[in-house]
This record gives sequence, C-alpha cells and structure tokens, in this order.
Amino acid sequence: MDRPRLCVIGVGLIGGSLARSARARGLVGEIVGCGRDEGQLRQALALGVIDRYQTQPEAAVAGADLVVLAVPVGAMGEIYRRIHPHLDPAAVVTDVGSVKEAVIDQVRAAVGTVPERFVPGHPIAGTEKSGVAASFDGLFDGRCTILTPLPETDPAATAQVRALWAGVGAQVVEMDPRHHDEVLAATSHLPHLLAYGLVDMLARMEEHREIFRYAAGGFRDFTRIASSDPVMWRDICLHNRAAIVPLLRRFAAELEGLARDMEQGRGQALHETFARAKAARDRYTQNQE
Amino acid sequence: MDRPRLCVIGVGLIGGSLARSARARGLVGEIVGCGRDEGQLRQALALGVIDRYQTQPEAAVAGADLVVLAVPVGAMGEIYRRIHPHLDPAAVVTDVGSVKEAVIDQVRAAVGTVPERFVPGHPIAGTEKSGVAASFDGLFDGRCTILTPLPETDPAATAQVRALWAGVGAQVVEMDPRHHDEVLAATSHLPHLLAYGLVDMLARMEEHREIFRYAAGGFRDFTRIASSDPVMWRDICLHNRAAIVPLLRRFAAELEGLARDMEQGRGQALHETFARAKAARDRYTQNQE
Repeated sequence: MDRPRLCVIGVGLIGGSLARSARARGLVGEIVGCGRDEGQLRQALALGVIDRYQTQPEAAVAGADLVVLAVPVGAMGEIYRRIHPHLDPAAVVTDVGSVKEAVIDQVRAAVGTVPERFVPGHPIAGTEKSGVAASFDGLFDGRCTILTPLPETDPAATAQVRALWAGVGAQVVEMDPRHHDEVLAATSHLPHLLAYGLVDMLARMEEHREIFRYAAGGFRDFTRIASSDPVMWRDICLHNRAAIVPLLRRFAAELEGLARDMEQGRGQALHETFARAKAARDRYTQNQE
Repeated sequence: MDRPRLCVIGVGLIGGSLARSARARGLVGEIVGCGRDEGQLRQALALGVIDRYQTQPEAAVAGADLVVLAVPVGAMGEIYRRIHPHLDPAAVVTDVGSVKEAVIDQVRAAVGTVPERFVPGHPIAGTEKSGVAASFDGLFDGRCTILTPLPETDPAATAQVRALWAGVGAQVVEMDPRHHDEVLAATSHLPHLLAYGLVDMLARMEEHREIFRYAAGGFRDFTRIASSDPVMWRDICLHNRAAIVPLLRRFAAELEGLARDMEQGRGQALHETFARAKAARDRYTQNQE
C-alpha cells in the first residue's frame, strides 16, 4: 500500500509541525495544505512543509486518506460542513482543537451526526509563536496527545489517528471529551487568561509608569503565553466557557483570600499556601524530567 | 588601599551570587559570611563563595568595609539592630530586599534613624531556586539594580554601593522607595501571587483528577516562579501589602470582566484584550533583546 495522502487544513504552528514531523518520519506520502491565507501556504510550500496547496477545503480533501483540521476552534464546524461531501469514503478526519465538546457539537450540527470516521483529538504541545514559520519537526516528541473518540467512532479510525501521533513521538491517551475540557481549562486555558489579563492590565497602567522596564526573568517566563495567537484563544475561551468561567471565578475568590491574609497579617497562612504550591510544582516538574 | 572586606549576611541565592561575582571580578578582598543555618555557611565555605563565617551578625561585621543584608525582608530590622553598634564608623551597609519602604521603616525603628551610610537596594534578578548551591557568578549581568537612597543618605555611600553593583554587571538606577514598591508589586509580587495561587488551587483539585499530567510547556513556564522560597515571599507579601492588595483586587476585577465577556459571548472584546496583551509583551521582549 502506498503511504497515505495527508491533507492539513490550517498550516500554522501545529498543522505545519505535524506535516513536518510526519514527513520526516516517513509516515505519509503526499501532503496537501489548505488555508485562507495564501501567503502562509506559499511559505509552507517554499519551506517544504507541504507538497502543494489548495485554497478551497472542498478541493483540498479530494483523494486524501487522512485529513487534519488545524484551524481555530470556532472554524471547525464550517470547515467540516464544506469538506464532508468531498471526503473519500475511507478517509479519516481528525482535528487538533484545544476544546473537544464544542468541536464535536459543531461537527454534529454541521452534518447532522458525528461521522464514525471523525476522531476528535488534541496534541498538548505548542509554543507562544504562531504561523508555519514557527513549525518544526519534533514539537510533539514526548508530549501527550489526547484523543476523545465517541461511542460511535470507528475503532479502526481511532487506531489510524493514534498511529499518526505515536509516529511523531507523542504519548497518546484517550479521554472523555468533557473531562478533557475540564482538565485543559485548569492547566492551559485559565493560565492563558491570567497571563493575557495581567499583561493587559499592566500595559494600561504603564502609560504612567514604565513598569515593564524593571521586570525580571520570572516575569518574562510567566507572561510568555500572553504572546500566543489572540484569534485561537478567543475561540478557545468562547467554546470552553462552561469549564473556564467557574474556574476563573474560583480563582478570583482565591485571590481575595490571599488579599485578606495579607491585610490581616496572616503570615502563617500565606506561608502554607506558598509552601504547598512550591511542593506541588516541584513534584510536577520532577515527574516531567 | 586594600580591597574592601565584604560581609554578606544571608548567604543564599542572592547573597552567594553577589559574593561569587564580586570575587570573580576582583572587587573585594576577604568575604565573611553570616547566617542562621550553619550548614549553608559550611557549604558556602566549601564552594569558595566565602572565606570564613560567623553565625552571629555582631561578630560578622567586625572590620567589614561593606555589609550586605541578604535575608528575608521581615528579618532586616532585627539584623540591623544587632549589627549597628558593631559597625566600623566608615562601613557602608546595603540590603537586597524586594521591598524598600518596609526595610527603611524597620531600620529606622531599630536604631531611631536611618543611618547615612545605609543605602537601600534591590537587584532585580533571581531564579526560582534558593540556597547558596544555586548561586553563581553572572546572575546580575545585564540586570537592573535599583537603589533607593534617602535625602539623608551619604552620596559617597551610595556611590560605593553603586560601584559594587555596576562592577558585577548590573545597570544601576535610583528611584524613590515608594515608586520601587509599586513597580515591583506590579511586575514581580503580583505575578508570584498568581502563580502560587494557581498551583495551590490546582493541587487541591488534583486529588480528584490528575490534571498536572496533561500540563504543557506553557504551564511549566507560567508556574516556574511558584517554586520560589515561601519564607521570602511571605515576607514580601506582608511588607508590601499596601501596594500589592489593591493590585490583587484590581486584577480579580479584570478576571470578572473576562468571565462576563465569555458568558455573554463577546468575542470581539476578548480578542481586543488578548491582542493588546500580545502586542505589549512582544514589545517588551523586543526591548529586552
């Protein structure tokens, strides 16, 4: 059998890195790119990330064995609606969206059912950069990719998507879509909101006092994720608000607790919070190394 | 003239790095360490960071030309009270505390006045690690050190402290103590509280769901500062609460604004916030490079 033809819709950091990694490891044959921004597609072609491109998703998926949707979460349903009639009957479709329930709901709304050869997925990888120029072979090495197949999903399709991610170096785990959305709300979506919110607040204060000038390395690391793509994060926030909003309010209440500890001079309570957090993070980073 | 004898009280990450850097660049003669933890002092001696040590600050400062207080902010006043009668009349004293008004107030309370040869200071440098083992020559290269001399401070003393920091590679700036405390509350103290608070909240949720397992590199960077020393940060929070608490509440209100934007599906507003933050951070990191 020939190597499968891969179609990547949305050739940015994630779509581009998947294409590069899959090609470098000999997992795929021809790679067709698709996207709205023809400049990005031309760049992807010039960089050798893709073999050719189409600007229309209907044309891009023709003859593809494997289709990867790597567009912002809010665009998934519309793309699915457009490609659905043009998919090869044997083609497997997956996505890389950071929210899973909303993507599944969009696909269901677009075509009336969740097709059995659609496998919802999410590689837990990325950098604060965006665009195909930032993509690289190796982004997924040692990272987790979460798949959230439904009861109606064809196990053979899930196995194909699993093989792709394992082939580019990821550890693949399966999870219920809602559980995925809650876990990611806590470890990714909430931190991004905090970083964006803090930098924005300080930038608005900064007109009066050049505060960023005296920021140290800790601030730079803490705010790195605030350099992420605003469109991608707008979509994630809108489409996972059911999980994010309660966490955001819970966190605001935590901050109020810390403010009261400070006002009332409760050094012991502050020390306990900080020591618990340090222990948890030191444990977590140890497990990562 | 002989090279000045340096006494470092609190030989941890900052005190140890200053000693190493000052020695490596030939700025000082003998280096005497002092601290409560004799194990740390022995380690500092073994590592060649100091030449000898005393466990009592009164004895440590005898004959010192330059005394650096590198203990947690809450301990500065008591140390000053103890060393004051034993200081050489020509000795210059400085500190490295992350809060300046509270340290100045403590020194004033301890000895009745702020001595003219005491120069309050703060190197904006550090890592999430602590202890002398984490100290290194080079920590201050290219970083800012803020000095906050008072009207009564002897300009010759300020010049000596400035020369020390410039000699170890820092850019030295002078600032009003209150302005320092407000700027640092925004760019350092608030981010540390957010990181500690988030990791602590997630750790308490984690008993039920192993959420850290699915955290990506962004989370690791975002929470790095939550591995900082809890005693140091308890003291900073207690001693700079006048500047931190209003900012913490202002930030909690920002989060409530983001929560409402999400609930009401205001994608445009979210996008604007994220884009403003990204632009501010990208600008800030460009200026750093």
